[in-house]
Amino acid sequence: MLKAFMEREKLLVEEKLFFYLETLEIPGVLHEAMHYSLSAGGKRIRPFLAIAVSQLLGKEKEEVMPYACALEFIHTYSLIHDDLPALDNDDIRRGKPSSHKTFGEDVAILAGDALNTDAFSILFKHGYGNFKKGGEYLADAIGGRGMVLGQVKDCKIPEDERTIEVLNDINYFKTARLIMASTSGAAAWLDAKDSVIKALDNYGLNLGLAFQIADDILDITSSTEELGKTVGSDASLSKMTYPSLLGLEEAKKKAFEHSQIAVSALDVFEESDWKKVLSELAEYVVRRKK
Amino acid sequence: MLKAFMEREKLLVEEKLFFYLETLEIPGVLHEAMHYSLSAGGKRIRPFLAIAVSQLLGKEKEEVMPYACALEFIHTYSLIHDDLPALDNDDIRRGKPSSHKTFGEDVAILAGDALNTDAFSILFKHGYGNFKKGGEYLADAIGGRGMVLGQVKDCKIPEDERTIEVLNDINYFKTARLIMASTSGAAAWLDAKDSVIKALDNYGLNLGLAFQIADDILDITSSTEELGKTVGSDASLSKMTYPSLLGLEEAKKKAFEHSQIAVSALDVFEESDWKKVLSELAEYVVRRKK
Repeated sequence: MLKAFMEREKLLVEEKLFFYLETLEIPGVLHEAMHYSLSAGGKRIRPFLAIAVSQLLGKEKEEVMPYACALEFIHTYSLIHDDLPALDNDDIRRGKPSSHKTFGEDVAILAGDALNTDAFSILFKHGYGNFKKGGEYLADAIGGRGMVLGQVKDCKIPEDERTIEVLNDINYFKTARLIMASTSGAAAWLDAKDSVIKALDNYGLNLGLAFQIADDILDITSSTEELGKTVGSDASLSKMTYPSLLGLEEAKKKAFEHSQIAVSALDVFEESDWKKVLSELAEYVVRRKK
Repeated sequence: MLKAFMEREKLLVEEKLFFYLETLEIPGVLHEAMHYSLSAGGKRIRPFLAIAVSQLLGKEKEEVMPYACALEFIHTYSLIHDDLPALDNDDIRRGKPSSHKTFGEDVAILAGDALNTDAFSILFKHGYGNFKKGGEYLADAIGGRGMVLGQVKDCKIPEDERTIEVLNDINYFKTARLIMASTSGAAAWLDAKDSVIKALDNYGLNLGLAFQIADDILDITSSTEELGKTVGSDASLSKMTYPSLLGLEEAKKKAFEHSQIAVSALDVFEESDWKKVLSELAEYVVRRKK
């Protein structure tokens, strides 16, 4: 069921994503660079999560779409800036040259900046949700106390602090916060009650951590072709990863544990197709091959 | 009168600016880098404009403060990214080493990203204005159809298009849009009626253009000590400026013209101290020595 749902929603997300982009009326190379990175593919998991949450809560998809697409703008901006020479210095992203390789570092920095800001433009221009609650959740999850903090922590790990606690802390900020913004943040945007937000916080947190550990594992077990980025790029930068700290088998076990906690967090919701899909997604992220 | 008002409001702005920053609870070097650039000084003209507009409209200052400080976060992020080696490559900003010189390029990029996002965090967390109208104005003014577009245009001027029309276009996006967000955007945030927003759009636009032309003039007439940045840095990059295209005298005349249009745009408002202050400000920006 998951696969069919993901494929269907991906079409909707991409239609809306580029519709919203065009409403911003951005000309020239800046538009080109934003479009290039937004259309580089990916599974659109974050918008998919936001849509799933809207359906779990019995809302219209239309209500969540500006928020869902804002998440993809933000995810895309974070990849562009993460790939920059001063950060991870990655030349390939999703099988294509990364933004700074194609447009130059100046335009890549600015395209990332525009995607960051215009995520909020879309929310304000097209959205009619709970701005105060949903906006605060989103901005908090991605700013200096969220995703960006995770990137700073990732850049600045002292050699003598390569522990699992430090790695958990980095991944919480760098990856899980934006996933949580896609689940509980979407619920806040849709004005859900606090108990629902709490359950989805727990789901998103554990899904995010499972996702990150699985990513680390894929980085050493997959081939470049399957992954669409330079395999072993984390290892070659001698980055701290779950397999490097725990070994491959323990890392797999850890990912599975988080995936199971995510599934359990959904217990508070009544049975439905969308609940089943969110369950399957939590199991899928640790099984995927790319 | 202007000087006394600016000094008084600057104290209030800086108190709030750092109060809001602390509420974000950002730890370590990221906090340090954000604080470093936020405290580098400057005249805080953008928050001052937002406060002035709130007073012109008879509102409480408290209502506009989150919006006013968001403007300063955004202005600060734009300076950090503008100074990066891939962009203007400026080593000095406001008399101190620029962010990437002090913290490295990686942290400078990320501190800029955090300030960009956390401008919205402050708005959502502490603000109770018209999110839809004010938020849209602000995001639109600074994203891919605003300030960032101006920066891209500034990076990518073809040699055969160094005309006054192109320069006006760059300055409209790069400088004037954020100034307009400080005047008419603040009015939108405070839920002002459209005729008020329109008048303040005209004021902000012409103030912004006068400001930019005066900045170009100062860059060639002032000393490094007075200006707190490397004098002639624009000229040495053979950037297109008003004096380089029009000559010094014509450029001065142009700045004066915009300043006078800005003053006239205030005609729709009743006489008051704050109207007088905004008038004086439009005249001050073209007379200032730094």
